[in-house]
Amino acid sequence: MANDKKMDKKVEQITDMEVDFAQWYTDICRKAELVEYASVKGFTILRPYGYAIWENMQRILDGEFKKTSHENVAMPVLIPESLLKKEGELVNGFAPEVAWVTMGGSEKLEERLAFRPTSETMFCDHWSRVLHSYRELPMLYNQWCSVIRWEKTTRPFLRSREFWWQEGHTIHETAEEAQAETEQQLQCYADFYENVLAIPVIPGRKTDKEKFAGAEATYTVECMMKDHKALQGATSHYFGDKFSRAYNVTFAGRDNKLQYPFQTSWGSTTRMIGAVIMAHGDNNGLALPPKIAPIQVIVVPVAQHKPGVIEGATALKDRLLAAGVRAKIDVSDNSLGWKCAEYEMKGVPLRLEMGPRDMENNQCVLVRRDNGEKAVISVDELEAKVQELLEAVHNGLYEKAKKNLDEHIYEAHSLAEAKELQEKNGGFIKTMWCGDEACEVKMKEEGGMSSRCLPFHQEHIDDVCPICGRKAVKTILWGVAY
Amino acid sequence: MANDKKMDKKVEQITDMEVDFAQWYTDICRKAELVEYASVKGFTILRPYGYAIWENMQRILDGEFKKTSHENVAMPVLIPESLLKKEGELVNGFAPEVAWVTMGGSEKLEERLAFRPTSETMFCDHWSRVLHSYRELPMLYNQWCSVIRWEKTTRPFLRSREFWWQEGHTIHETAEEAQAETEQQLQCYADFYENVLAIPVIPGRKTDKEKFAGAEATYTVECMMKDHKALQGATSHYFGDKFSRAYNVTFAGRDNKLQYPFQTSWGSTTRMIGAVIMAHGDNNGLALPPKIAPIQVIVVPVAQHKPGVIEGATALKDRLLAAGVRAKIDVSDNSLGWKCAEYEMKGVPLRLEMGPRDMENNQCVLVRRDNGEKAVISVDELEAKVQELLEAVHNGLYEKAKKNLDEHIYEAHSLAEAKELQEKNGGFIKTMWCGDEACEVKMKEEGGMSSRCLPFHQEHIDDVCPICGRKAVKTILWGVAY
Repeated sequence: MANDKKMDKKVEQITDMEVDFAQWYTDICRKAELVEYASVKGFTILRPYGYAIWENMQRILDGEFKKTSHENVAMPVLIPESLLKKEGELVNGFAPEVAWVTMGGSEKLEERLAFRPTSETMFCDHWSRVLHSYRELPMLYNQWCSVIRWEKTTRPFLRSREFWWQEGHTIHETAEEAQAETEQQLQCYADFYENVLAIPVIPGRKTDKEKFAGAEATYTVECMMKDHKALQGATSHYFGDKFSRAYNVTFAGRDNKLQYPFQTSWGSTTRMIGAVIMAHGDNNGLALPPKIAPIQVIVVPVAQHKPGVIEGATALKDRLLAAGVRAKIDVSDNSLGWKCAEYEMKGVPLRLEMGPRDMENNQCVLVRRDNGEKAVISVDELEAKVQELLEAVHNGLYEKAKKNLDEHIYEAHSLAEAKELQEKNGGFIKTMWCGDEACEVKMKEEGGMSSRCLPFHQEHIDDVCPICGRKAVKTILWGVAY
Repeated sequence: MANDKKMDKKVEQITDMEVDFAQWYTDICRKAELVEYASVKGFTILRPYGYAIWENMQRILDGEFKKTSHENVAMPVLIPESLLKKEGELVNGFAPEVAWVTMGGSEKLEERLAFRPTSETMFCDHWSRVLHSYRELPMLYNQWCSVIRWEKTTRPFLRSREFWWQEGHTIHETAEEAQAETEQQLQCYADFYENVLAIPVIPGRKTDKEKFAGAEATYTVECMMKDHKALQGATSHYFGDKFSRAYNVTFAGRDNKLQYPFQTSWGSTTRMIGAVIMAHGDNNGLALPPKIAPIQVIVVPVAQHKPGVIEGATALKDRLLAAGVRAKIDVSDNSLGWKCAEYEMKGVPLRLEMGPRDMENNQCVLVRRDNGEKAVISVDELEAKVQELLEAVHNGLYEKAKKNLDEHIYEAHSLAEAKELQEKNGGFIKTMWCGDEACEVKMKEEGGMSSRCLPFHQEHIDDVCPICGRKAVKTILWGVAY
């Protein structure tokens, strides 16, 4: 066999984000080894490094869900077509994107089965059979799984035919409790974005046009990427008793009469990895918030051929591991320059360098990924300093993202102005709105923007809707979204 | 609306295992709220309590995999038919059981896509594109997901069209390393069964007839259920370079020439929950090994209407939680009898009872699920005693299961004797074997048993194969299996 493969992996250049943001994004996805394309068009593979980020996200979110008494379950992945069709809006919303199983073994199925695009129908079907009494409420369920939506154009993490997510589904005795759950879970996502992913968000309500198919209300956390485009971070839906009625989910109430429970669902996906890339990355690659970084500290021995260096550096790595820090050492024979570039590309929050002279002086060097700052520290204070600097990296990333967000929200008082601001600066354009979907459609068609949300924080900008001139009822954010 | 639903859940009787073992099993699955049937035939729902058991299994196994440097990934769930067909034995083994996606949205797909029955093909396809050098080997991957196999008859956990599992897939530079990996992972499963699930196993090699489609060798851990039937606990496969060649997975070796890596895969599934039910359960319900029990200690206040009882019992529950014990308290207004029966049904390893008199005496009562033994302990030594008794429950379950296994292995010296022993006692029938598949087929047809494994622990029972009379080469175990 002839050898036409390269012997060694190299750190390859990535496209500058200012030159081609989309290519910069794809380069990071591939070269940081997060994701790889699969043989099936529009499908992706989460590679170990990408999956490790997802595992950290899962562990933290799952812990939060459990603190508020949610329980995990597993529902079947296939949904009979007749069951999916019971709630009209939902099926109309998802039908064009459903992958259908029509054969089991060598037999044609009597009824085709949908690969779940979302599982409201399965949860309702289950509850219709197991729920009896108000005493069993609320039922607070969640599942971690993958779903399929047959998208036409795809991009790693942002839009792919299969993606990984959690979908929470709950039923409650009263509308108020379900509404409170919807809000609580949106707040959970907002906290996760800010405290874990270091991405500031704008929480708000979706317009009827943009809400989830079948929902009475959809809430969202919207974030801003470095190219000033918007990204919907996660959503939380309130269904009222619409699905309960469609699927005949009932319980005996306190008055011993049958009632329909009130329902919510809420979801977050591997798209959050895309958000992290585009909120924090730079021309050197990925920059990971420490709480989700698979490697928090990479230890790089300097002049590692000198006696004792590898041992000394390994001892520091072991101390960090013992302190609960996700630390790793690279003692490969790649050059120091290669290692620095490689772990910058992979977004490792802190690099620890130690060479012979550092050892003599009982010190080491810590380099921050977010701003390149170097700190020479005494190894005696290693654990405390690393902890401090990991927090500093989180805060550094957050502050930069916050500045990016704050500097790219613009007020507009006419459709023309909104359009001009968007074309010039990108970002969120804030206007008043009359509440009429026709104005939303007009903004989309003429201004090229979709409504992102009606932010919870409402302001008075104008008296009238800048699109139609009628009375304004809400502040609304517009943007070009992923 | 008329109320035709029952107001309260009751602890219902389950069928005695001596009367109808299959019904006893199904009763536990449903009445301990582990699993529920779904709208799709042959599919099941893992309910919160069942899923919590699976989560504990996942957490412990995943930790073991990571200790030996395995990394998690996520492969696409759909496999193009052409890709699946590249390795002939595999596709022949699985083709009759594959569910096919033929429509994406409203369009008929050009090539139909298989819902993964197992993912060797996807891993190989991925490796064929990302592997370059021996320096990148081994690649030690695992994924947690669900798979579909379109079985004709199904039973909760044991055989269902969709099941949840982990599938490990690794590639190595040399055959020896891959072989060592196969054995290491089998040992990992054996340890998990014995130390976590409290189920003794017999490790061994599968015959060629019973091995995994496409594998060079399949290893198994076999266990025995309370009805003396066999259950295959988990398997580990060695593939040699067969799949590498079929999928053109290559790397530049130390001599800079292209080589094919050597491959393994290994898997364990939600079927382990079925094994736990049938290895430890009794006529009062489930009996869970403490390490995987969602609730390890249920605190039941006695005469809870008396002042201070609920507070006192809650304080004990909180102390246990603080000590890392999965404890829960039931202060519902159900009767003490109901609560005792309910948590026995659910297999909770320890019940803690405390009433007014116990409080006066600074004591509480701990009741073991495995043997009903009660211990009156001082609350001062709560944490230590609970820990001790949880270990005792684990050991108690293990000893009973070991006794059941040891007492139901029988030596036979002829097919007729083997058949008679099986019909009379069930269990594993141990004989010699010539190595010829024809004798295996004969044992199946005439004796009603499949070969379970060639146990690693080989003995000399006879000189000749009891089926054909030719020279014996191996000790073999036969049984009736789930």
